[in-house]
Amino acid sequence: MKMAGTGGETTVSGRFCPECGAVLEPHVVAGEVRGHWRCTVCGRLHYDHPMIVVTCFVACGKRLLWVRRALPPKAGAWAVPGGFLELGETLAEGAARELHEEAGVLVPASRLDFYMVGTITFINQVYMAFRTTVESEFTLPGVESLECAFFSREECPWDQVAYPEVNEAIVQAYDDLDSGVFDIWHTEMTESRYQRQRVRQHLPS
Amino acid sequence: MKMAGTGGETTVSGRFCPECGAVLEPHVVAGEVRGHWRCTVCGRLHYDHPMIVVTCFVACGKRLLWVRRALPPKAGAWAVPGGFLELGETLAEGAARELHEEAGVLVPASRLDFYMVGTITFINQVYMAFRTTVESEFTLPGVESLECAFFSREECPWDQVAYPEVNEAIVQAYDDLDSGVFDIWHTEMTESRYQRQRVRQHLPS
Repeated sequence: MKMAGTGGETTVSGRFCPECGAVLEPHVVAGEVRGHWRCTVCGRLHYDHPMIVVTCFVACGKRLLWVRRALPPKAGAWAVPGGFLELGETLAEGAARELHEEAGVLVPASRLDFYMVGTITFINQVYMAFRTTVESEFTLPGVESLECAFFSREECPWDQVAYPEVNEAIVQAYDDLDSGVFDIWHTEMTESRYQRQRVRQHLPS
Repeated sequence: MKMAGTGGETTVSGRFCPECGAVLEPHVVAGEVRGHWRCTVCGRLHYDHPMIVVTCFVACGKRLLWVRRALPPKAGAWAVPGGFLELGETLAEGAARELHEEAGVLVPASRLDFYMVGTITFINQVYMAFRTTVESEFTLPGVESLECAFFSREECPWDQVAYPEVNEAIVQAYDDLDSGVFDIWHTEMTESRYQRQRVRQHLPS
């Protein structure tokens, strides 16, 4: 998983027009300036927007798949496989692609179940997490991973994780594996607040 | 709701570096080129990514809130209120903001229930839909709306909607209003396929 703005990469924050290279100016919409930019030459409008991270919890029994990052940021630390959604792919296709790229695990997108959605406002990321199961712990680490491993909750190197800010969501996944009950979760994480709630659902009787 | 690339606005497709204005070149990652760009001068990396649209189904009895668009694209046509998620806000806050901007309807983000998630790959948008209820049909159209109205399924001007490609999701919302059963929906829409599925969920007994 790459986190925006923490390594050499950046999200597009806008100063120069990506279309013509001229200077951008803030664009006021209905009296508000909110990360909108207008090109002073070609007039095109540009917007800064949050990024979508797709990720997948892959369970083999009570163990979940982790990857040890080969690339910055957080090289050497462990994370649940995932990364930015790319153009032209569905959420599940993106999560399946990341699984394959980072861990060599090939699961069809159609076998990924939608599981969690969350906003992390202070890094402007929305994450969409799927879940699936595999029969074996076989992996083939890609160029972005130093190694891959399935860890039980107890085996997990919690002190070497890349993004401890999402640990609570991962603990929830272990809880759900233990109980066999997989609700859908909606998380909001801001500078001042962490809130995870079960999405209310009324099943047909 | 603004659809990217259909009006004067664009998503950032990358030719010039937004940070320094120099020319960008395609950036190859592990032998693949996928909408990644590198600045030929400052070396910064930039990515094209899908955009997040937040929207909300607001029910008053069996009627849903619609807004008639004042701005291009699709000015004059009807749509469910919504728009692009902005920096620094949660999904629910973004949906609440759009409701307020477009229809003058003020509902706290905490009162929006997560409802649908979908990918529309051919316009590179991911939409996140919430639902809520209001006690009255009072609205106050904002500068982006010509008018607002609550329509039952029968009253809805289906031949004047801005984005007929999402009509099936809206019909689902009317169905759920009728049945009182609000499952969580995951939709994938590609050039070749439309698929909407109820997210499997096992409630605790």
